[in-house]
Amino acid sequence: MIQTKLIPRTTEAHEPPLLIKNLLAQSLKYEPQREIVYRDLFRMDYTRFNQRVRQLANVLTDLNVQPGDTVAVLDWDSHRYLECFLGVTSTGAILHTINIRLSPSQILYTMNHAQDKVVFIHEDFLPILAAIKPQLTTVETYVILSDKVYTGTSEINSLAELPEGFSGEYEALLKGASEQYEFPDFDENTWATTFYTTGTTGNPKGVYFSHRQLFMHTMGLLTYIIGYEAMPFKGSTDVYMPITPMFHVHAWGFPFLATMMSAKQVYPGRYEPEVLLKLLITEGVTLSHCVPTILNMLVSSPAAPKFKQNLSRWKVLIGGSALTKGLAKAATELGITVMSGYGMSETAPVMAVGYLNEQEKQLSPEEQIDLRTRAGRISPFIEMRLMDDDGNFVPHDGHSLGEIVARGPWLTQGYYEDPERGADLWKGGWLHTGDVASITPDYWVVIADRTKDVIKTGGEWVSSLDMEDVLSQIEGVAESAVIGLPDDRWGERPHAIIVQKPGYTLQAEGIKAGLQAKVERGELHKWYVPDRIVFVTEIPKTSVGKIDKKKIRSEMKELILGK
Amino acid sequence: MIQTKLIPRTTEAHEPPLLIKNLLAQSLKYEPQREIVYRDLFRMDYTRFNQRVRQLANVLTDLNVQPGDTVAVLDWDSHRYLECFLGVTSTGAILHTINIRLSPSQILYTMNHAQDKVVFIHEDFLPILAAIKPQLTTVETYVILSDKVYTGTSEINSLAELPEGFSGEYEALLKGASEQYEFPDFDENTWATTFYTTGTTGNPKGVYFSHRQLFMHTMGLLTYIIGYEAMPFKGSTDVYMPITPMFHVHAWGFPFLATMMSAKQVYPGRYEPEVLLKLLITEGVTLSHCVPTILNMLVSSPAAPKFKQNLSRWKVLIGGSALTKGLAKAATELGITVMSGYGMSETAPVMAVGYLNEQEKQLSPEEQIDLRTRAGRISPFIEMRLMDDDGNFVPHDGHSLGEIVARGPWLTQGYYEDPERGADLWKGGWLHTGDVASITPDYWVVIADRTKDVIKTGGEWVSSLDMEDVLSQIEGVAESAVIGLPDDRWGERPHAIIVQKPGYTLQAEGIKAGLQAKVERGELHKWYVPDRIVFVTEIPKTSVGKIDKKKIRSEMKELILGK
Repeated sequence: MIQTKLIPRTTEAHEPPLLIKNLLAQSLKYEPQREIVYRDLFRMDYTRFNQRVRQLANVLTDLNVQPGDTVAVLDWDSHRYLECFLGVTSTGAILHTINIRLSPSQILYTMNHAQDKVVFIHEDFLPILAAIKPQLTTVETYVILSDKVYTGTSEINSLAELPEGFSGEYEALLKGASEQYEFPDFDENTWATTFYTTGTTGNPKGVYFSHRQLFMHTMGLLTYIIGYEAMPFKGSTDVYMPITPMFHVHAWGFPFLATMMSAKQVYPGRYEPEVLLKLLITEGVTLSHCVPTILNMLVSSPAAPKFKQNLSRWKVLIGGSALTKGLAKAATELGITVMSGYGMSETAPVMAVGYLNEQEKQLSPEEQIDLRTRAGRISPFIEMRLMDDDGNFVPHDGHSLGEIVARGPWLTQGYYEDPERGADLWKGGWLHTGDVASITPDYWVVIADRTKDVIKTGGEWVSSLDMEDVLSQIEGVAESAVIGLPDDRWGERPHAIIVQKPGYTLQAEGIKAGLQAKVERGELHKWYVPDRIVFVTEIPKTSVGKIDKKKIRSEMKELILGK
Repeated sequence: MIQTKLIPRTTEAHEPPLLIKNLLAQSLKYEPQREIVYRDLFRMDYTRFNQRVRQLANVLTDLNVQPGDTVAVLDWDSHRYLECFLGVTSTGAILHTINIRLSPSQILYTMNHAQDKVVFIHEDFLPILAAIKPQLTTVETYVILSDKVYTGTSEINSLAELPEGFSGEYEALLKGASEQYEFPDFDENTWATTFYTTGTTGNPKGVYFSHRQLFMHTMGLLTYIIGYEAMPFKGSTDVYMPITPMFHVHAWGFPFLATMMSAKQVYPGRYEPEVLLKLLITEGVTLSHCVPTILNMLVSSPAAPKFKQNLSRWKVLIGGSALTKGLAKAATELGITVMSGYGMSETAPVMAVGYLNEQEKQLSPEEQIDLRTRAGRISPFIEMRLMDDDGNFVPHDGHSLGEIVARGPWLTQGYYEDPERGADLWKGGWLHTGDVASITPDYWVVIADRTKDVIKTGGEWVSSLDMEDVLSQIEGVAESAVIGLPDDRWGERPHAIIVQKPGYTLQAEGIKAGLQAKVERGELHKWYVPDRIVFVTEIPKTSVGKIDKKKIRSEMKELILGK
């Protein structure tokens, strides 16, 4: 950084830090009558929400939570979780959002590693807690979250009925707390949130974000989603419902944006297709985000076509895994507006979202699919480059490939107490994503593969994602995964596993013949055609719904090779 | 500030500062084909704009401008000025926007005080320069700005023809400079801009803003103007043209927002009614901002009614002085959407903008006028309070009055090398505005008066602004000013001066009778009725177009009192 002249400051002058409480304050100013809804169990307006967040802050004080202490949450997506997003952080404490899909032993690891002091836990997860409780080294007390209190069917009538170590039930504690609480000012680099991401090897890694980073991520979404209308979102007419878990990168940061805009928000609890579809309709949801698997589940639901009228106002941002053209078409045919985004746990997460410029908006829906399934255009305030194996930058010409490296105001600055893997992430001032991509001169990012999943065959590269995209467009294919397996002659060769749609009986030979025809028409490189195509009933996924290629390579190798 | 736990940072991790160059980078990403227009003289797209800003940076290097040096501009509103907004600041130098309406001696004072090193000056202002040049103590060189180069009528064909001390003509220098320039990273608290505000006494005061402050002001406008649609502004359909000079608080910061959104921008040069109206129509301008005087000039222009069709898409934010109900009605009748904002030079400037919430949007146009003429609703990220003379906070109940004090991420942190007046501005961590107002529970700010202009008569307060608002609604009144003058019996009494519309012959007695009738109907306090009403041909204004009440009190006292 070069030396410049800084602004002088008068002794009593004040310039506030960028804190999450500023997003909360905003929600009260202009449209506090809008609602936050939790399934059919609970609803409130923003005035009440602000009061409850302050009540929560007072509860934390009563539980002896000090600035810098960690408060963990194990819950389905709920208004309570949103209150923790804003309230826990604004007291100066750290919010640990626990991944409920991890194994109990991994949950145990993350809770001890993050030094959780107070744990808010939904009663559905008490069995997990029972299994690990004796080995938790830092937890002082628990608060139970129960949906039954909203229906009056709770069996918890007194503190004595709570499990040992519990301080109370969430709603009861809030009820007893004052609505007055002045959120303090503190350094904007204060640690606000933490959560764990599972890598391919070793223990889960703890990523973390500061108040400033989450504030700036909200500004980035605001600029892009609302300002540029990449995914038009108006507080006055739009209704937001996440279908990416709140434990996973703060539901991609959208709850902070929706809160600042005092937009109507709907929290669906546990993801059950019938509940999601019902909320979409009864609450008038217009904006969501999810991984392809969830969209696929909803689109293939037998109920979907009859909701076509309601689905036509629904905009869905897809991330986590590549959106295939097949799924994008199926969703579009139901009237759903789909757009891809790109990011990772380490990047808070948004680094790119699709945006059709004035020219591209003129394209036919068919032609738009190609753009809507790309990773997106580079987000506001994110600097992105492609790097080759020698650390040189690769041109943004739309075809040269390189690893995506990035800088920006909301990237995790390391992994908690894991300097070795942190140093792998950050090299030379650039965050290394492990994704191989090309970038067009007009800022479109096209992901080729994970560096680990790209298949090298006879000196040529096969993008497993591209091949999956081709398979997704074959009639009867519900889902597919393409992996590389060792080959004596070519080094590696691609292989595919496919899940069929109900009622179809596909044949590997038929699919291969179709691919061969594509090769002859010049639509596909011949080295892309998988050696073997195997039908399976389910494709292994990670805890956040991504295709688990490491698991496929290790556990399904023999199945695929027919050995 | 309380102590918290800060995020740890891996050695090679990077988190970028908030700099103006990030707003510039954004303009290139998605819609670089949109245009920036200067009168009928020059137009370019954002790709060219980005190249020119980099050429400018190289010119500055050639002129030996170092980080921390001050570059001054004396120009009408132009694309060149916009290039300086982004380019001068992004090199780490300080941009001094000179108020061309100050007297030559005041301009001289500000240039020496700001230590201008390089001066970009439009040829129209060479006579001013000639008068003060010998006394400028820090300027090393000048660059001339000429509109004639765009029409091929320039008489400047070689360096030898330039005045002594000049390094060249702007376009010629740009032409000779490379389009490659990597804007450096530096501390976000780097001094970016400075300009001078004239107080009621003493020399002009230098206010100043950092990169972070201007970045955050842009985020505030984005949240409010675009996010909440306080003044709907879409890059895809809106066209921006400032009619508040760029030397005055960076044209209220809108050029930074418009640039980041790569919206079409139109710069009108010198403000001539026929040019402004023509640009409004030919370039399809939809969003502007100005002081009431300019709006009044356009609304009363004989040409206005015939442009009604074009004016109906025009949204105008009014600030600087109070928007009277009379003017708001006249503008609304022409189809113009008007809204008030509130701020000052010291606050970058926006602290409030009118926003009609969902309920208020249902009100009749007539009822909306009352809201649209209020100072506005408190802006995102701005904290505002009312303070009484003893430093106590006054409730936000819609009627209690107090001085507006504020905090926020974009307030000047003092006056340059003026600790005494800086300490008056900042007391106890609050910026003291000198404006008396009430605030409603739903965040509306209603300004009563400047603390200096409020009239105290027989123990009662008269808001000069309220009284002017009443006068503005009388048929035939073009403009008015109400001031307090000493009175033996009451301490002070209000008096009014009025400018009539052409073709009217109003009588003071008739107006007073009308006001008396209002008193009898209970619509006006009797102590509000001015003692004397005097007709004048012009109302004295400050250099930024505000009614100069200090001047009226001192220079027109005898005229008003008839002595």
